[in-house]
Amino acid sequence: MEDIQDNIQFQLTDALIEKVEVLVEDQNDKALKALLNEYHYADIAEILDDLDIEDAVYVIKLLDSETTSEILMELDEDIREKILGNLSTKEIAEEVEELDTDDAADMIAELPEERQADVISQIEDQDHREEIKELLAYDEDTAGGHMAKELVKVYETWTVAGCLRRIRGQAKDVTRVHSVYVVDKQNKLIGRLSLKDLITSKSDQKIADIAKDNVDWVHVNDDVEDVAKVMAKYDLEAIPVVDDNQILLGRITIDDIVDVLKEEADKDYQLAAGITQDVEADDSVWELTKARLPWLVLGLFGGLGSVFIMKGFEDVMETVPSLFFYTPLIAAMAGNVGVQSSAIIVQGIANDNVKGSMANRLLKEIGLSLINGFALAILVILFGLLINQDTTESIAIAVSMMSVIVVAALVGTFVPIILDKRGIDPAIATGPFITTSNDILGIYLFFVLSGLIIGF
Amino acid sequence: MEDIQDNIQFQLTDALIEKVEVLVEDQNDKALKALLNEYHYADIAEILDDLDIEDAVYVIKLLDSETTSEILMELDEDIREKILGNLSTKEIAEEVEELDTDDAADMIAELPEERQADVISQIEDQDHREEIKELLAYDEDTAGGHMAKELVKVYETWTVAGCLRRIRGQAKDVTRVHSVYVVDKQNKLIGRLSLKDLITSKSDQKIADIAKDNVDWVHVNDDVEDVAKVMAKYDLEAIPVVDDNQILLGRITIDDIVDVLKEEADKDYQLAAGITQDVEADDSVWELTKARLPWLVLGLFGGLGSVFIMKGFEDVMETVPSLFFYTPLIAAMAGNVGVQSSAIIVQGIANDNVKGSMANRLLKEIGLSLINGFALAILVILFGLLINQDTTESIAIAVSMMSVIVVAALVGTFVPIILDKRGIDPAIATGPFITTSNDILGIYLFFVLSGLIIGF
Repeated sequence: MEDIQDNIQFQLTDALIEKVEVLVEDQNDKALKALLNEYHYADIAEILDDLDIEDAVYVIKLLDSETTSEILMELDEDIREKILGNLSTKEIAEEVEELDTDDAADMIAELPEERQADVISQIEDQDHREEIKELLAYDEDTAGGHMAKELVKVYETWTVAGCLRRIRGQAKDVTRVHSVYVVDKQNKLIGRLSLKDLITSKSDQKIADIAKDNVDWVHVNDDVEDVAKVMAKYDLEAIPVVDDNQILLGRITIDDIVDVLKEEADKDYQLAAGITQDVEADDSVWELTKARLPWLVLGLFGGLGSVFIMKGFEDVMETVPSLFFYTPLIAAMAGNVGVQSSAIIVQGIANDNVKGSMANRLLKEIGLSLINGFALAILVILFGLLINQDTTESIAIAVSMMSVIVVAALVGTFVPIILDKRGIDPAIATGPFITTSNDILGIYLFFVLSGLIIGF
Repeated sequence: MEDIQDNIQFQLTDALIEKVEVLVEDQNDKALKALLNEYHYADIAEILDDLDIEDAVYVIKLLDSETTSEILMELDEDIREKILGNLSTKEIAEEVEELDTDDAADMIAELPEERQADVISQIEDQDHREEIKELLAYDEDTAGGHMAKELVKVYETWTVAGCLRRIRGQAKDVTRVHSVYVVDKQNKLIGRLSLKDLITSKSDQKIADIAKDNVDWVHVNDDVEDVAKVMAKYDLEAIPVVDDNQILLGRITIDDIVDVLKEEADKDYQLAAGITQDVEADDSVWELTKARLPWLVLGLFGGLGSVFIMKGFEDVMETVPSLFFYTPLIAAMAGNVGVQSSAIIVQGIANDNVKGSMANRLLKEIGLSLINGFALAILVILFGLLINQDTTESIAIAVSMMSVIVVAALVGTFVPIILDKRGIDPAIATGPFITTSNDILGIYLFFVLSGLIIGF
């Protein structure tokens, strides 16, 4: 049981990395193989992510391609790119040979275009080569871009016994069987069977008699995010992919969907935080700057817009100077309320949870922001009493803040809805756009409304 | 194929809901059953989410508990609570009877405490009852709180043929088999087998000979988020759960983990947007207010803090009034930079991706924010030229903004790291806390540094 315990509780330590580095330096291949053999390929990938590229390439060249192909798929994308850059097209083709078609196509798609054809032509297994070529033709955001060709299919005319015999052959290439797909002579998907159904049926039964015909499927051009939603909703662990004629092309498994969901969640989270491209804490300063600067520049323009607006109210400084002390508060409230409203709507849209008419939503959002705004306005007036502020000023500030909050909530609610209706990902609105526009709008409204109440 | 197409492409329409409502009103049970029979239980749940509670209860009472138990598990939590409130403990027990142990335990855990024992005592199947009781004892954040008792296990001493025979019995209660777990006489987990291994092995082989001994497992008290990470990392579709003595207690399947990952992602996203409890767009105004007001109040206090600070610099209004025009910009920059830095760190911590020493991270974050800050400072100076602002003032504003950005980045980076080290979820820091503290700190720094440069 010792190994099992190690496996799940894998902790990447500096000592382990050093041990690997020393063995690489000494070219002690035997000990290195013995050491790495103890670890799962996903753990070896974590080790390699932390080595120098030359050392990582050494390890990849040392281990056999059955293991290294899996390791390569688990590496950080930029590390994988560098390692593949150090392998010959022949060596890459050997790795590809070991991978399932979906991973194989992904790996090839990441290569520089000029190397892709070269690698493909060196794949020895002709079926594998043709299948990979087919997969490379699909858009990466579609079901086709995520499916694998590996699956187990049986013809409706077979018997259970014949079926089991043939499955023994097909299943060798399929890591996890999940479902057995039942097709007719034209390869049209007409049903499914679980292995459980097969082993619990009599051996002379016809497949057509025991197959379930309520098989879920997706079209090869369906958006992969929709596929993920369908699989999560119906608790599916694999789903077959068909073309216009219902011909069975491949299948998508839940582990790929877990990755899609995770990437999507990470992307939305980063967008909400104003990070415009997928980055990790350990990316280079340059990568991080590219991801972070765009929003900051947008925010800066927003801020400069506020400067402009306030310059227009410069005279007020002599009559009601305290208004200017409240501008960061107003901007913050407008931004915060806008982000909250938009985040709820963006999640609602993602979960198909935004129901009811626009008018109802409008009323609800106004009601909600009036309640929040009123509570906050009371606090502002109390604060005004505390610092002996002129009561009219306090009321003016409180009331205009309330109005700003209502407007900010409406902007935060409807901008994502409108974007979604126009086919734009509403998640991009949540962070930068809403915050910046609400800042400017909020400060302008604040001065105009305060002016109306105080009279300037 | 007609039904299949409907199934995957299910769209909830007002017409469908109205149809159901009319049939309920007419008490046309036969037509209602026939209509709903066409839909997957997850789709029926969507329909019920949109009905009045009385209508939904009517539908639940009409359909048989094999279907309704699954429908209930797919409903919105608050709708489920209301429907269960309208069922007798006997009726709930009948639903529970049909559910897998993990779902059964979840449903019972949601009931008011005084009803729980009543429902449990009315479960007729004694094994099911005892298993549910066992599961209810585990913390909902642990592996035990998410595992099901349903699994297929075989003893190492059996043969393949005997094994297949026994599995036919066990598998009836298990929706998806995934792996067959191999145990010794004491029920200790010692290996695993896939169904594929079983059907591709000779029938007289001993289980001990074909079982794989590198079986991954988790401990019953492990944090479920760690379990999710392990399953995603090793691409597992089910994982057995054991106790201190390696005794097999249950198993967790990937569909439960998909839900855990999704909930976790939603929670982090909402926290980043300043929403303090799990809400949906369609929750009541009161629920939404409870989720949104806390951050707004915190933000308000931050804003009032800024008012206080600026009051301290009131005299500056006469000498350098334009500084006050820049305060929303400074607050926005401090907030934005802080949110970006913290989001990257929070994701890095979640993905075990934050490596290297604190000193290195400090240097990197300073470098990064200096680059961003410098680019933004240039823009501020250009803007100053454009509006004919005094050059010293422009430089003072630009330089102090740069410093504010560096400090904000450091706060955004290290607050989550420190929280994580103290065992607090770093995600709570990203939104409210970082934004508010950076606003105040930023404005204070801005006036102090500008004062040093301009000289007031």
